[in-house]
Amino acid sequence: MSGAPPVAYLGPEGTFTHAAARELFGAAATYAGQVTIEGVFDAVARGDAGCGVVPIENSSEGSVTQAVDALIDGALVLRAELELPIAHCLVSRAAELAPIERVYSHPQALGQCRAWLFRHLERAALVPSVSTAAAVREAKSDERAAAIASRLASEIHGVPVLRERIQDVAENATRFVVIGAGDAPRTGADKTTLAFILRHERGALLRVLEIFDAEGINLTRLESRPNRREAWEYVFFTDFEGHRDDAPVARAFDRLRTKCVMVKHLGSYPRAPRRG
Amino acid sequence: MSGAPPVAYLGPEGTFTHAAARELFGAAATYAGQVTIEGVFDAVARGDAGCGVVPIENSSEGSVTQAVDALIDGALVLRAELELPIAHCLVSRAAELAPIERVYSHPQALGQCRAWLFRHLERAALVPSVSTAAAVREAKSDERAAAIASRLASEIHGVPVLRERIQDVAENATRFVVIGAGDAPRTGADKTTLAFILRHERGALLRVLEIFDAEGINLTRLESRPNRREAWEYVFFTDFEGHRDDAPVARAFDRLRTKCVMVKHLGSYPRAPRRG
Repeated sequence: MSGAPPVAYLGPEGTFTHAAARELFGAAATYAGQVTIEGVFDAVARGDAGCGVVPIENSSEGSVTQAVDALIDGALVLRAELELPIAHCLVSRAAELAPIERVYSHPQALGQCRAWLFRHLERAALVPSVSTAAAVREAKSDERAAAIASRLASEIHGVPVLRERIQDVAENATRFVVIGAGDAPRTGADKTTLAFILRHERGALLRVLEIFDAEGINLTRLESRPNRREAWEYVFFTDFEGHRDDAPVARAFDRLRTKCVMVKHLGSYPRAPRRG
Repeated sequence: MSGAPPVAYLGPEGTFTHAAARELFGAAATYAGQVTIEGVFDAVARGDAGCGVVPIENSSEGSVTQAVDALIDGALVLRAELELPIAHCLVSRAAELAPIERVYSHPQALGQCRAWLFRHLERAALVPSVSTAAAVREAKSDERAAAIASRLASEIHGVPVLRERIQDVAENATRFVVIGAGDAPRTGADKTTLAFILRHERGALLRVLEIFDAEGINLTRLESRPNRREAWEYVFFTDFEGHRDDAPVARAFDRLRTKCVMVKHLGSYPRAPRRG
């Protein structure tokens, strides 16, 4: 495997994404940690990495905005998925909560622990960092700071765990995806991710859902987010069972294009079980 | 009006919400600024304020999480809405961008200016604050800091405007709502906001949209967010034309209750024009 291009991931070492990449590609692969999610997409698009691993959705906070925006704007597609349970630790050199004035973490992790932070560290400033592992490095140099991160990151950087399992929803899980240049081949147990923008007319979403229903396609997720290019316009994201090469999916795509302002296929890939 | 209970709003003075409250209730009303959105809901629920004003949705960033969560969890409902165009300023004591190391603002405002910040202040730390006006107070005491806020907040706190209109989407607008103890009376040009949780079965959302379609009800918004109480479960939020006391809306409510795990009416109120 030593000649294969590296796997880019949202680093540094010790992030939850690092753990997901290791589970997906194993100990023999080479890895290249990137500072941001956009950096992972860039490394793959430039060819510096063969593929990339990024978080795309959390069970309590929803979509990871930067990953979704990069998919919409770029040419890469999803090639695989993996769901990992996420247990957050409060990591600090402080021996108790009282002296902690600042809590560093990725905004997603701060959001996943919002109620806990409000109950236990109401006066602390919440400081966003580019990753949970970067947050641990901040907390390492500051006795009045803590980070929210994985146990792995605490071990790598040698900062003690002060509290465990501080996420607001006990069964917290994140879905990670592999991004690359083309679809994964059809396996017969696949999933497809799609983005679309509706026409401004009554019943537009109903007409779209009827297309899926008529083809017997089961939507497993439907979310909407504002389109950052136009005020009060929404982009819908949906996951469903099936591969782009399955006849019902191909027919649905053709019909969708006649009913939507925009339809973008974001990838077809083998379905992974939910574990959160 | 001096005997009337005050209007609670997301303060302090100079926030965009303050401007919205002034436009809705006028100069003669008395106002009580609150530190958080949850604080506005609490003041109204306790009876310390007659009603409250909070932001609920932005045209490029989507729903304001804290407001939506407080509506889902509490007993207050929407009684009126107002849309205001939002122009963000970079406010700082610094004379140029180079010395700025920190940018303070509400997370929504940081999000609305994300691309601008990346282009012009890539190395600056982004520090969340409870409101745009509170951010200006932080920037007042720190020469290496800036805040993202309104021109009004810059004037109130005496901190100069360094750059204007830095929001990523030029036509940026926020929808503010009045919250209170009961529905506004029917006017004939009303809007209703509703939350629902689907059953876990194929076509569940299609069945719900068919109910609205059969009653001739036009959905103007449909968003979904993770349910913070249960992993991988989503709450849908929808706005549509009509009042709870209109017969088609009342019939749709009855039918929805038979198709959903949860249905919660979040208010019926006069429709305001979009101005963003």
